Amino acid sequence: MILTTAIAPKTLTAQELHNIDAYWRAANYLSVGQIYLLDNPLLREPLKLEHIKPRLLGHWGTTPGLNFIYAHLNRAIKIHDLNAIYVAGPGHGGPGIVGNTYLEGTYSEFYPNISQDVEGMKRLFKQFSFPGGIPSHVAPETPGSIHEGGELGYSLLHAYGAVFDNPDLFVCCVIGDGEAETGALATSWHSNKFLNPVRDGAVLPILHLNGYKIANPTVLARISEEELKSLLIGYGYKPYFVEGDDPEILHQQMAETFDAIIREIKAIQYDARTNGFSKRPQYPMIVLKTPKGWTGPKVVDGIPIEGTFRAHQVPLAELATKPEHIKLLEDWMKSYKPEELFDENGRLIEELAELAPKGDRRMGANPHANGGLLLKDLKLPNFQDYAVKVPKPGTIKAEATRIMGQFLRDVMKRNLDSQNFRIMSPDENNSNRWNAILEVTNRVSTAEILPTDDHIATDGRVMEVLSEHMCQGWLEGYLLTGRHGFFSCYEAFIHVIDSMFNQHAKWLKVTHQIPWRKQIASLNYLLTSHVWQQDHNGFSHQDPGFIDHVVNKKADVIRVYFPPDANTLLSVTDHCLRSRNYVNLIIAGKQPELQWLDIDAASKHCEAGLGIWDWASNDQGVEPDVVMACAGDVPTLETLAAVDFLRQHFPNLKIRVVNVVDLMTLQPFSEHPHGLSDRDFDSIFTSNKPIVFAFHGYPLLIHRLTYRRTNHHNLHVRGYKEEGTTTTPFDMVVLNELDRFHLAQDVIDRVPQLQGIGAHEKQLLKNKLIDHKQYIAEHGEDMPEIRNWQWRY
Amino acid sequence: MILTTAIAPKTLTAQELHNIDAYWRAANYLSVGQIYLLDNPLLREPLKLEHIKPRLLGHWGTTPGLNFIYAHLNRAIKIHDLNAIYVAGPGHGGPGIVGNTYLEGTYSEFYPNISQDVEGMKRLFKQFSFPGGIPSHVAPETPGSIHEGGELGYSLLHAYGAVFDNPDLFVCCVIGDGEAETGALATSWHSNKFLNPVRDGAVLPILHLNGYKIANPTVLARISEEELKSLLIGYGYKPYFVEGDDPEILHQQMAETFDAIIREIKAIQYDARTNGFSKRPQYPMIVLKTPKGWTGPKVVDGIPIEGTFRAHQVPLAELATKPEHIKLLEDWMKSYKPEELFDENGRLIEELAELAPKGDRRMGANPHANGGLLLKDLKLPNFQDYAVKVPKPGTIKAEATRIMGQFLRDVMKRNLDSQNFRIMSPDENNSNRWNAILEVTNRVSTAEILPTDDHIATDGRVMEVLSEHMCQGWLEGYLLTGRHGFFSCYEAFIHVIDSMFNQHAKWLKVTHQIPWRKQIASLNYLLTSHVWQQDHNGFSHQDPGFIDHVVNKKADVIRVYFPPDANTLLSVTDHCLRSRNYVNLIIAGKQPELQWLDIDAASKHCEAGLGIWDWASNDQGVEPDVVMACAGDVPTLETLAAVDFLRQHFPNLKIRVVNVVDLMTLQPFSEHPHGLSDRDFDSIFTSNKPIVFAFHGYPLLIHRLTYRRTNHHNLHVRGYKEEGTTTTPFDMVVLNELDRFHLAQDVIDRVPQLQGIGAHEKQLLKNKLIDHKQYIAEHGEDMPEIRNWQWRY
Repeated sequence: MILTTAIAPKTLTAQELHNIDAYWRAANYLSVGQIYLLDNPLLREPLKLEHIKPRLLGHWGTTPGLNFIYAHLNRAIKIHDLNAIYVAGPGHGGPGIVGNTYLEGTYSEFYPNISQDVEGMKRLFKQFSFPGGIPSHVAPETPGSIHEGGELGYSLLHAYGAVFDNPDLFVCCVIGDGEAETGALATSWHSNKFLNPVRDGAVLPILHLNGYKIANPTVLARISEEELKSLLIGYGYKPYFVEGDDPEILHQQMAETFDAIIREIKAIQYDARTNGFSKRPQYPMIVLKTPKGWTGPKVVDGIPIEGTFRAHQVPLAELATKPEHIKLLEDWMKSYKPEELFDENGRLIEELAELAPKGDRRMGANPHANGGLLLKDLKLPNFQDYAVKVPKPGTIKAEATRIMGQFLRDVMKRNLDSQNFRIMSPDENNSNRWNAILEVTNRVSTAEILPTDDHIATDGRVMEVLSEHMCQGWLEGYLLTGRHGFFSCYEAFIHVIDSMFNQHAKWLKVTHQIPWRKQIASLNYLLTSHVWQQDHNGFSHQDPGFIDHVVNKKADVIRVYFPPDANTLLSVTDHCLRSRNYVNLIIAGKQPELQWLDIDAASKHCEAGLGIWDWASNDQGVEPDVVMACAGDVPTLETLAAVDFLRQHFPNLKIRVVNVVDLMTLQPFSEHPHGLSDRDFDSIFTSNKPIVFAFHGYPLLIHRLTYRRTNHHNLHVRGYKEEGTTTTPFDMVVLNELDRFHLAQDVIDRVPQLQGIGAHEKQLLKNKLIDHKQYIAEHGEDMPEIRNWQWRY
Repeated sequence: MILTTAIAPKTLTAQELHNIDAYWRAANYLSVGQIYLLDNPLLREPLKLEHIKPRLLGHWGTTPGLNFIYAHLNRAIKIHDLNAIYVAGPGHGGPGIVGNTYLEGTYSEFYPNISQDVEGMKRLFKQFSFPGGIPSHVAPETPGSIHEGGELGYSLLHAYGAVFDNPDLFVCCVIGDGEAETGALATSWHSNKFLNPVRDGAVLPILHLNGYKIANPTVLARISEEELKSLLIGYGYKPYFVEGDDPEILHQQMAETFDAIIREIKAIQYDARTNGFSKRPQYPMIVLKTPKGWTGPKVVDGIPIEGTFRAHQVPLAELATKPEHIKLLEDWMKSYKPEELFDENGRLIEELAELAPKGDRRMGANPHANGGLLLKDLKLPNFQDYAVKVPKPGTIKAEATRIMGQFLRDVMKRNLDSQNFRIMSPDENNSNRWNAILEVTNRVSTAEILPTDDHIATDGRVMEVLSEHMCQGWLEGYLLTGRHGFFSCYEAFIHVIDSMFNQHAKWLKVTHQIPWRKQIASLNYLLTSHVWQQDHNGFSHQDPGFIDHVVNKKADVIRVYFPPDANTLLSVTDHCLRSRNYVNLIIAGKQPELQWLDIDAASKHCEAGLGIWDWASNDQGVEPDVVMACAGDVPTLETLAAVDFLRQHFPNLKIRVVNVVDLMTLQPFSEHPHGLSDRDFDSIFTSNKPIVFAFHGYPLLIHRLTYRRTNHHNLHVRGYKEEGTTTTPFDMVVLNELDRFHLAQDVIDRVPQLQGIGAHEKQLLKNKLIDHKQYIAEHGEDMPEIRNWQWRY
């Protein structure tokens, strides 16, 4: 390819054009080198099979496009003084991003053994997708990344999450045309209705339309340009098309387009910041249409490669059996003219190295992409100040999550100046009883707002949209760039983001092994409107399985809490807001429920994670006859009501009540740092007495956490067994045999000294269940003795 | 509201207008009645508190819109002779759909106690959202529904799934503007690129823009009409806007629009069916913009209700404490003029009843919505004909899923005439090795097709799109309307549809209790490119947790299979294609792997579900010293390689090898119909010998399935423990200690007679692991002794 000065006045001078093209060639060269080479990195000797990796793993197809954008973004950062990071949606183009951070010098700063010389380049090539090396996708190991390039769909959400409350930040987000087909990505375009140019930075989406996925064309590449344009305008953007396969023309077009777009964005921001927010602007974006595997082999073995799906991964393979492919590879790599790009020592020549921004402006070094560097602790009020007064356990009612909302209101208030705390919810903030937060801030929308709307403003800090994907993705992006947040969600529907949770948990796990990745704030979930409180929404809204899903992840990453009342919920919330690098899962109810612990007892109980409730037990000074354990607010209520019945009818029965707040205490200490030692576990759960355990979720989870404990064979767990419909709250627990009457029967069945003598009481309990069914069939609500029950001891 | 003949020539005559409005009023009346009333259904006596339900549960906001559409669709069915069903995206408007099926008579046919008289109406009202009654959402119990109205986002996918291969079917799909924000819905508009008017029916999407969700405005209601129009055109549709709050005007508009649209759709179909497919048509759709809670209370206690988010659920509450609300309710219900709508006996007057279609054309009676009625068995070739020849276990290699693809090719071929079998995959059909299917059909696309594309045609039966949501939703819709299919997916990313699986499994569970719901074909998953074969894609692609997720569902709904080789996979595939009303999960690898069983042995093994592999064991006639169990192809390989080592080094050690294909056999029989009896379990796993179990997924799952078994305390499970990166296949198992060397060490550590004497061999094994690490660091691939290992006994 010969670059000429070409036509009339262009954005790039001939020299600039030559240089930016050379920089791009260098990145492409390094990308191919990473995919193929073990040795001979600069091809200074003829390429031989022994220089080539035996297993060829990597994705070429998207990489030249990613490199093209990186080079132009470098230029834009310098010219327009941008504070920018790069989100690579097609993150399987890992060699491109790694190669670029190597070219700009950041890679060698984080990994000094990958030095900017021949030996370093050789190591750079070898480590890629090689045992003991680095992943083939953009990953936590990649400098400058906040986005794992594995599962597709979340790039644009991460980009928006990053720019919220970062007015100076500019995120260039490359979206693959394959990724664009995913549900999460398809809705995330609408994030622009939540972005306020006064206080937020800018996202530049670049839809990279290279036409193919692994084996299929992409949907957006096969609709007319007019339809695509209409779609993007409908999403609220102003699309610019940069299209072709001639680098010379495309460099000019891209430089020109970047300049125009950045001027537009700056004008939008200037206007909003000078004159205040007036209306949602139409932000520019780019559709970059280039061939898949651009600049790679055009035809191999007579089959077209460039511009087809065959360029997706490794365009040339079978090098051991097809020696002519080695020659093709060599020609391909040499087409980038490495001898013009790298000096004698293997370092990028000075003239090109100057094209990269300096210091922290290099995208691989931007501190926003290593958010822990920027993280400030939240200013937290004393959670004890929000306590519910509990003069006596089980006599007054409160809505736990409403109290939590009051605490969060003041967390919000105290940190308004810092602009580093946001609340996410899929249209459920008030339904989940966090109404109080709206006393100090609003919901945010930059779409049209009408007088009939409630607490909506362009500068609100509560983000509500009916998409769990968006809530999750925004929050991840916000946390990864060093801020704090909380996500409240209906328990059943958090499964919508199971897969996103997986990826975030995996990210956190890997960052624990990367010294330069600083700790970020934990991802905090409140799951409420939970399985036991979805009696009116019915079976479709009843699913506590997210707990199981979370517990599969590494112990150093996840925490699961079941505060049984408002004061314990306050303590747990405070703890989660202070924690770092975890996913904290809190499950708590929103309905008026009996309160058990005053704030001092609650704080101590939460610190221990689980404990014997002496006030509810009557085994003081002796071994109990039975342990009644519970985790979750509704199971705690039912357990205590069962205890009440049993103590009334069997005053000599010694009952120990154990409440579990921190689920991880049940696991062996060897499996989780919160796990109780076997000795402590045995001293609480005894080594041989029956345990009746009432659990919020699926009963098997308790078994899988405790199967190694001494007394496991005496453990009987009640929980959700997929029975439910639209019925009364108490009937929900009855359907799943988690209710007080079943629990009391379980004890009678299991305590040896009650064998035989408990027959009358068992009948009583059975009659209660019959009465219950009759009552609800007639009245449609629970019996007064259920609704009005209080703790009496 | 007084209806006048109004202006010039309209679609509806005055009489027609009056009638359709009256029909709509009747549906609205029944909807409000269901939400509120226990008694006094026709308000023939003054409304009193005792007539009103104590717990008011339901969603009014969307209901009048759903009813409005239903009435007009009834008209269209009659005029245009449509074979139509109704998918209610905002399915929480359950009372509307229930009310309409009651009006048309189908409800009483399915549920004779809900008769079309005063007593029946009273029961209809009472049962709604009442204990022992029906759910408040559209549910399996609702006649005419294939769509649960709980979790939002899947309506349009179900609608498209229903019309594929149903050329005469017309699905009217109402999409809530809240639902439209979800990821799944946002991408599912693109389903039109997979619809072929020659062979498929038509979907009419109606975006119901009523402005609000529970508490927030919707995104699409707050962008300009121009932007919305642009978005929908960009999605490939031709939007018609029907907008306003004056019923008289809207009835005319809606009738006119329906007529125009149906003519357009018929013209599209006629053209395609006469002249063949030429290009993707632009299908019409409707944007229906009406106030939320339309015709309900406008203002309550001085606060606006109609047209605001406050109309979402129950607009009038606190009836016990606010007697004036009872009056408001009575006025509201009487505004529909029930006395004009229902006769003396409480039956819809004849003049209105005639507006509904007849027989199976009534949407509540359409057999497509009870797909089991239409289900035909697949014509299956003999799976044994596809067998891999296995002269001796563990000596030849085959790609299991490729063999499965050959079987599925001929399943496809034999059923091409019936047009009732489709394959779904998120761009992974060939990656998952089902290439053979493309020998007899193509991938389908009705977007642009280029010469560089591979096996893509407008009439293909393989559906590939990079959205697990779309694959899942289409398949659900296809199965629910009585057809068959298979979904192949990378194991890690099937979590994208965790939540959709939940809802489908719940649907199936509920239908088991509904006699009139006929059995449908099972939802079959092949998960491949699994955790042990994602060594090159790395940690982000490694997650076997979907198994855990599935196992939480009811035993009568789910099945999980781990065929260890190609012949067992054939047998399992055949079984799954014959099964009904399950979700079948098959996990199998796609790489060349050693084959163990010939087809006879494989068939028997799969029939049993698990079994002792005598040829691999050396405990014939005696109790073994150790049981080595395995589930999954890679764990089976590693187990047998460990057995090989142990038999070589400890010839006197009696080893029993147990392979598990059907995971559910491990559970107690009381928990799952496939569960082994305790006696059988003990006879296979012994009651006191160590068991070393190599498992494909998370080890805790095996514990939770077996914790009640006699010998559980001797069970030691190896599996995935969230360790992984980009490395070699064998290193993946080493990182998780599931490899042959660790398994052999586990045995040495656990068998009493090897205590002390196994020290030398343990060191050998440790050295092997060191050798392995050194070898891969140098060569980037596994040692030849690993790659070339074969079974020797």
